[in-house]
Amino acid sequence: MKFIDKNNIKSEAKKLKPLDRRSFLRKAAVITGVSSAGLLSASNLPPNIPSWSKKLGRAVNVNPYGLPSKYAGNVVRRRVPWLTPDNIASISFSPLAEIKGIITPNGLVFERDHGGVPDINPDDYRLMIHGLVDRPLILDLDDLMRFPSESHIHFLECPANGGMEWKGPQMGRLQFTHGMNSCCEWTGVPLKYILEEVGLKPEGKWILAEGSDGAGMSRSIPISKALEDSIIVYAQNGEPLRPEQGYPVRLFNPGWEGNTMIKWLRRLEIGDKPYYQREETSKYTDLLYPYDKDRQHLKGKAYEFSFTMEAKSVITFPCPEKPLKSHGRYILEGIAWTGTGKIKAVDVSFDGGVNWVEAPLKGAVLDKCWTRFSIPFEWKGQELLIQSRAIDYTGYVQPTYNQLRGARGVNSVYHNNAIHTWRILKSGEVQSVQLSCRCDDE
Amino acid sequence: MKFIDKNNIKSEAKKLKPLDRRSFLRKAAVITGVSSAGLLSASNLPPNIPSWSKKLGRAVNVNPYGLPSKYAGNVVRRRVPWLTPDNIASISFSPLAEIKGIITPNGLVFERDHGGVPDINPDDYRLMIHGLVDRPLILDLDDLMRFPSESHIHFLECPANGGMEWKGPQMGRLQFTHGMNSCCEWTGVPLKYILEEVGLKPEGKWILAEGSDGAGMSRSIPISKALEDSIIVYAQNGEPLRPEQGYPVRLFNPGWEGNTMIKWLRRLEIGDKPYYQREETSKYTDLLYPYDKDRQHLKGKAYEFSFTMEAKSVITFPCPEKPLKSHGRYILEGIAWTGTGKIKAVDVSFDGGVNWVEAPLKGAVLDKCWTRFSIPFEWKGQELLIQSRAIDYTGYVQPTYNQLRGARGVNSVYHNNAIHTWRILKSGEVQSVQLSCRCDDE
Repeated sequence: MKFIDKNNIKSEAKKLKPLDRRSFLRKAAVITGVSSAGLLSASNLPPNIPSWSKKLGRAVNVNPYGLPSKYAGNVVRRRVPWLTPDNIASISFSPLAEIKGIITPNGLVFERDHGGVPDINPDDYRLMIHGLVDRPLILDLDDLMRFPSESHIHFLECPANGGMEWKGPQMGRLQFTHGMNSCCEWTGVPLKYILEEVGLKPEGKWILAEGSDGAGMSRSIPISKALEDSIIVYAQNGEPLRPEQGYPVRLFNPGWEGNTMIKWLRRLEIGDKPYYQREETSKYTDLLYPYDKDRQHLKGKAYEFSFTMEAKSVITFPCPEKPLKSHGRYILEGIAWTGTGKIKAVDVSFDGGVNWVEAPLKGAVLDKCWTRFSIPFEWKGQELLIQSRAIDYTGYVQPTYNQLRGARGVNSVYHNNAIHTWRILKSGEVQSVQLSCRCDDE
Repeated sequence: MKFIDKNNIKSEAKKLKPLDRRSFLRKAAVITGVSSAGLLSASNLPPNIPSWSKKLGRAVNVNPYGLPSKYAGNVVRRRVPWLTPDNIASISFSPLAEIKGIITPNGLVFERDHGGVPDINPDDYRLMIHGLVDRPLILDLDDLMRFPSESHIHFLECPANGGMEWKGPQMGRLQFTHGMNSCCEWTGVPLKYILEEVGLKPEGKWILAEGSDGAGMSRSIPISKALEDSIIVYAQNGEPLRPEQGYPVRLFNPGWEGNTMIKWLRRLEIGDKPYYQREETSKYTDLLYPYDKDRQHLKGKAYEFSFTMEAKSVITFPCPEKPLKSHGRYILEGIAWTGTGKIKAVDVSFDGGVNWVEAPLKGAVLDKCWTRFSIPFEWKGQELLIQSRAIDYTGYVQPTYNQLRGARGVNSVYHNNAIHTWRILKSGEVQSVQLSCRCDDE
């Protein structure tokens, strides 16, 4: 395998100015001269008038709530049948290869339920806030909506995103390696306003957030997060929360693992210590069998309450779902995000991490939000090992698999934010691979 | 009617600090003491365990493309049956009273078609660029997607939004007075890249953009806009364009009237002058019968190519769909937008424009994008005339109806960006009204 030299990539990238992109066109029909009529034979192709122009289309508002084109049927969430024992406590993944920009439309936001989706009539919805407070309260949805609201665009990632990859590459497609991650505009009431309303006692240090689903999903949230930026959310991307996102109300903790963002939120109990629920002890902790010699003393221990989703990124084009179909120039595209705040930079490698070049960020760079990056490259049919690594404003750099395994081994499920590798074959097909793998469970 | 004094409003607003909002609660149940069990009798209310917690919910990913809750059935687009002679060349309106934040979900984006929605198989889609260019081209969808893309959150407003209100208030609800306006993240190829590709000739000054719908909707676009920020769009809010938004490809001209953003885009012809199509001569021009004496020389003339949607705003709560149900403190909410760039400020009046107070802007303030504003107020049952006026960075202030009619009369249909008035009755109900109306067709 011949790797690309870093300096070559840089000069290549420099050459690809906005004014020099003719070669992006693979097979566009160039119309020669003015007598272009009849150049293309199919009757629907210009300069012919296509058949659909010769008649009226369907009426306005056939669907009062609009739906995608029937031709976009491949742009859907997907389950992996073997991944969970049933389809109630299960997962669906966002089709990241098909999603553009920083907004995930509500129909494509990934789904992770522990006891299925409850059917809650909003008229019957209540939220109880009690425990170490002066004025315990029960709110209905109208009460909640009278508080001041805020709207923020934030990513939402399950901490188990990529969890199957600790021991080696198992999930062959972008949708399944990284698709437990979506990004929406969330609207609701800052939790601090609710806590002011009930009168938080000084000894109140943790909050038990309990869902009303059949699993009774519950997590302990430190009061510091609640006072910083947690939101009691009732809308996503402008409309009421979707059933699988917690309709009518969920907790949202920007930048933290999705599991803490309790859906179908029923109860907030303020206490003086963590509640040590099932889903923060037997699950959603990071069991350690570090490979590094100087970390062996941690063997068999576990991190608990590792809330923050640290800097991570992935290349969304090319990827297994979007191979290269011909030689020529392309725009490599990807997403980066971090629970610590804003993305500072993203580097890209075409040679499996030997050489790196900074990829420009695209569009708005928002707090705890997807950030897009892109960089042009030319493909002449050679094999490539493409990677991206995100860097946040704390200076944290997205780690390699070897670094993660050195610190934690391979018995973790959660918080896999390792640098991911796509291998581009000579055919243009793209495989999910891992490099110089420390995969043995020592 | 007793009006609120400006100074009183200011001091009232000052009093309502984030730490002082207990009175937002109208009827929340305060749990007294620790023996709260049994306080509320209904079995689904906390502290009782609701019925839906006692069983498993529906399976994950029953809908690979997710859908709203069945309880959100009122959050839909709506037509006004009498407004258009048929439902093909017709309109549906966004439910602005229900929409939060700055993203309109794709299912709720308003729809305005002139010949219905064509059914276009993306494999058959072609875009032809020809005229005053060096290398006329025909692109398919794959070609288009190989160009560098950008994503931006921009509003999209039909210039006929509010068009029925020129002669007086006719549409009683927010959905119909202002609902031909939505805001999405749009992704596509900057048109300037396409023009570089084809080699724009120096004499090319205008572009004919032609749709492939049955109406053959077509508009002339000055080359300056195309080179500034026009986008050939193929995705909205992360997913493929919806059929009624032009699937698979539309033109998008940020900040300009929606009618110029040709859907189902088939052809871009570069010429040296405007093409004077039907929808920019007999329609989408502003016929003048000014009321002001110093403008009488304009009588019977018309503005053409009035592209930019100037600063406008509307209060979304309270509104006819969202009345006040009891006395107490509320948060007034609204949206402002301008095609000239960013919103600088929004003023709110509670007394029909006699006194004004600045309402803080909420969240991100983006270019040519919805901007949210809000301000707390106390309602003691008195009648109010609430208004908002947007101000942009050029210093332009959203005009009154009297100012608009002075300049243009009432025979316009388009570009009604007048300050809107909601009248709050003693019952808490909200009416759409106009004040000191110059409504006679002189």
